Amino acid sequence: MDDHLTATEKSRLRRYHERGHFDRATINGILDAQPMCSVGYIIDGCPYVTPTFQWREGNRVYWHGSSASRALRNAKDAEVCLTVSILDGFVLARSGMHHSANTRSVMLFGKAVKIADPEEKVTKLRNFVNGLFPQRYDTLRPDHPQDLKATMVLGMDINEGSAKIRTGDPGDDEADYDLPIWAGVIPVTMQIGTPVPDPRNLEGVELPEHVRNFRLE
Amino acid sequence: MDDHLTATEKSRLRRYHERGHFDRATINGILDAQPMCSVGYIIDGCPYVTPTFQWREGNRVYWHGSSASRALRNAKDAEVCLTVSILDGFVLARSGMHHSANTRSVMLFGKAVKIADPEEKVTKLRNFVNGLFPQRYDTLRPDHPQDLKATMVLGMDINEGSAKIRTGDPGDDEADYDLPIWAGVIPVTMQIGTPVPDPRNLEGVELPEHVRNFRLE
Repeated sequence: MDDHLTATEKSRLRRYHERGHFDRATINGILDAQPMCSVGYIIDGCPYVTPTFQWREGNRVYWHGSSASRALRNAKDAEVCLTVSILDGFVLARSGMHHSANTRSVMLFGKAVKIADPEEKVTKLRNFVNGLFPQRYDTLRPDHPQDLKATMVLGMDINEGSAKIRTGDPGDDEADYDLPIWAGVIPVTMQIGTPVPDPRNLEGVELPEHVRNFRLE
Repeated sequence: MDDHLTATEKSRLRRYHERGHFDRATINGILDAQPMCSVGYIIDGCPYVTPTFQWREGNRVYWHGSSASRALRNAKDAEVCLTVSILDGFVLARSGMHHSANTRSVMLFGKAVKIADPEEKVTKLRNFVNGLFPQRYDTLRPDHPQDLKATMVLGMDINEGSAKIRTGDPGDDEADYDLPIWAGVIPVTMQIGTPVPDPRNLEGVELPEHVRNFRLE
């Protein structure tokens, strides 16, 4: 779906080498590349955008938080918008107008459903941890029942949404390519650093594979 | 302001070494460190979260987009929520419950005001470009009147909002520190890469200082 774009916007997007992507593989690829997302709720008639982590299982996306969270309690059975955006570069053109950013983003729309069943909730949280750090959840101190009660897990089917991707060089007006102005791209990447062990780790506890090999995408 | 957090949430945040920060310097520091933001609007009663760039001038934050954008037209004189979030690390604890993320985020609430005056609009767009790339705007092909017409600039006073910061090691339950589980932080940073010149740059055009020295924060 892309009905939030007017015809003018669509044509402008094309001009900027941007494309709306609606195929599931593209959407999944962006969701899987970046757990950080922004979830938009409506509380008392006002928009409310909270940063959180999302994870995907097949055709569903999940996120979680405190059961006491006003935003999450409001989100249950309500319309939400979940947006993931990745900045890949600053695009410097020959006019201010054509400055842009290389980005990958996904917007998903739908009703958030609360995962009420305690066993399903544990399964989802396990999948969340193990999705980022394979098999880690199974090495941890098992969740206390009160921890699970304090945690709300929400899910949403991936039915309505779109991805937008911009890559490559600036798209300047043809006449402007004759100007002696430096144009190009300043790339941006997310760098995973060297793991910092907790000073309270027990002696002899080794860095696990799921930390050593941690990568996104 | 932090009235979107319940007492339980606040106590939970403290437990996680998180703090709500309300001082202007902290909020400004986060806004200035990351131009990417998510702006939440309400369209036809549904939340709508769009990724875009923001820039700050004193006590105001600005963003821009196509004048034809349905979201931006809806945002004018309406309540919006502008959120910036920076992921600094994955926090791996000894239980699933205490896994977390080191993040810096800001949520701002208020009414978006459209910058209608064409000269003020140019000044704002100039400040946006020059804020990221000092003096660049003044070296560019000047904006065409139709470019400016096609661009909407919105501003919002920084009056209502909060910053949230989490740093440091995992915060585990005291009993769990005896477990032989690796805990720690996987740091994440935004890496600025080597500038990629547009293949259509004229011969002899040199890499400007504002590109060579580009840094965020």
